[in-house]
Amino acid sequence: TAIRDIISHKQADLKGRRILVTAGPTVEPIDPVRFISNRSSGLQGYAIAEALAARGAEVHLISGPVSLPTPPHVTRINVQTAQEMYEACLAHLPVDAAICVAAVSDWRADTIQAHKIKKKGDEAAPTLSLVENPDILATLSHAEQRPALVVGFAAETTHLQDYAQQKRQKKGCDWLLANDVSKHQFGGAENQVLFLTGSGVEPWPEMSKQDLAQHLADKIASFFHQEAP
Amino acid sequence: TAIRDIISHKQADLKGRRILVTAGPTVEPIDPVRFISNRSSGLQGYAIAEALAARGAEVHLISGPVSLPTPPHVTRINVQTAQEMYEACLAHLPVDAAICVAAVSDWRADTIQAHKIKKKGDEAAPTLSLVENPDILATLSHAEQRPALVVGFAAETTHLQDYAQQKRQKKGCDWLLANDVSKHQFGGAENQVLFLTGSGVEPWPEMSKQDLAQHLADKIASFFHQEAP
Repeated sequence: TAIRDIISHKQADLKGRRILVTAGPTVEPIDPVRFISNRSSGLQGYAIAEALAARGAEVHLISGPVSLPTPPHVTRINVQTAQEMYEACLAHLPVDAAICVAAVSDWRADTIQAHKIKKKGDEAAPTLSLVENPDILATLSHAEQRPALVVGFAAETTHLQDYAQQKRQKKGCDWLLANDVSKHQFGGAENQVLFLTGSGVEPWPEMSKQDLAQHLADKIASFFHQEAP
Repeated sequence: TAIRDIISHKQADLKGRRILVTAGPTVEPIDPVRFISNRSSGLQGYAIAEALAARGAEVHLISGPVSLPTPPHVTRINVQTAQEMYEACLAHLPVDAAICVAAVSDWRADTIQAHKIKKKGDEAAPTLSLVENPDILATLSHAEQRPALVVGFAAETTHLQDYAQQKRQKKGCDWLLANDVSKHQFGGAENQVLFLTGSGVEPWPEMSKQDLAQHLADKIASFFHQEAP
């Protein structure tokens, strides 16, 4: 029964906490059939949502299009575009924590064509004008109803630690998990991150996305345990 | 046994025919994580490959990334980009028929960035320069080893019959199946097409993608039956 007690204690240690998790890619339409997207599988965000819900948190998962089942006891809200994800996140405030794992498109097409863009014989190929999407992580980090804990993810292909430190400061989030997607295939099953906080950088070893989710859930539970009166 | 005879006759009526089918979207990378693609599910192309193989044809299915199982007795070749699909198609010639169902990206990014493109603070969002991809349907229709039968698909959102007739002539294919993707959701389970040949236009009724595949397989079998000495 000692082990059972430990497990049930662990399972309950986020009870009463309302947590927002974003996951998957966003899809930015160009015209009725074409779009810009990215290789996010949603695996890491879904694993985190599952780990938090298993510990009793009330998890709201704002998800781009992925082919994954909704984890047990998780409320899932499906979105397509960054703008939709942004609005869904704001609509879910206040929350105790926001874990922004989604690979949100930085840009969308300036104009979404109502009809399929046609190839025009000898004319040059079109150029696609992009405009910047709203920054969900920065917005949540500076919101009037700011969550007590805001966590971001950064996928980089070069200058991992430099870019991640700059990103953490610029966005104003508390923690940032940065992974080098030139080493670990984006969308794959394994992950290896730098864990950045205001007080330093921890390199975490390579592990499965499930293990990383457990590890992060431990950190989140500790944060709220220390914060509690 | 009369019915059994009809079925086994039907099942064998494409025996000895080598047929190329393309299916699914292509994915055109922008950088290591971002890409341009389209909403093709691969359902129609896979249904056609399955119907042709069930009638004894030797089917080579050149497929963009989709989440569908390979149909029985079909040889599947996975590709990502239009350029890869183009090369795979040419490498499979000669064939008796080519059925081009894939939604091939007309354009790709002019330059694929080796590193993830960074958002640059106050600077304007980037513009994406596109270049035209090789035209697989036109190339097969004019190849030295031209298949006896070349069939294309056209997804349009407006001026369906006009655009389709222009497309059939411009590409040089024998038959073109044109569907209005503003009416029938692109990537969905149902389909409704205009069937265009050199001798006219047949509007086919709305039907499932499986039924459309059977209908087209009937036409293909008739074509080779009439062509045979």
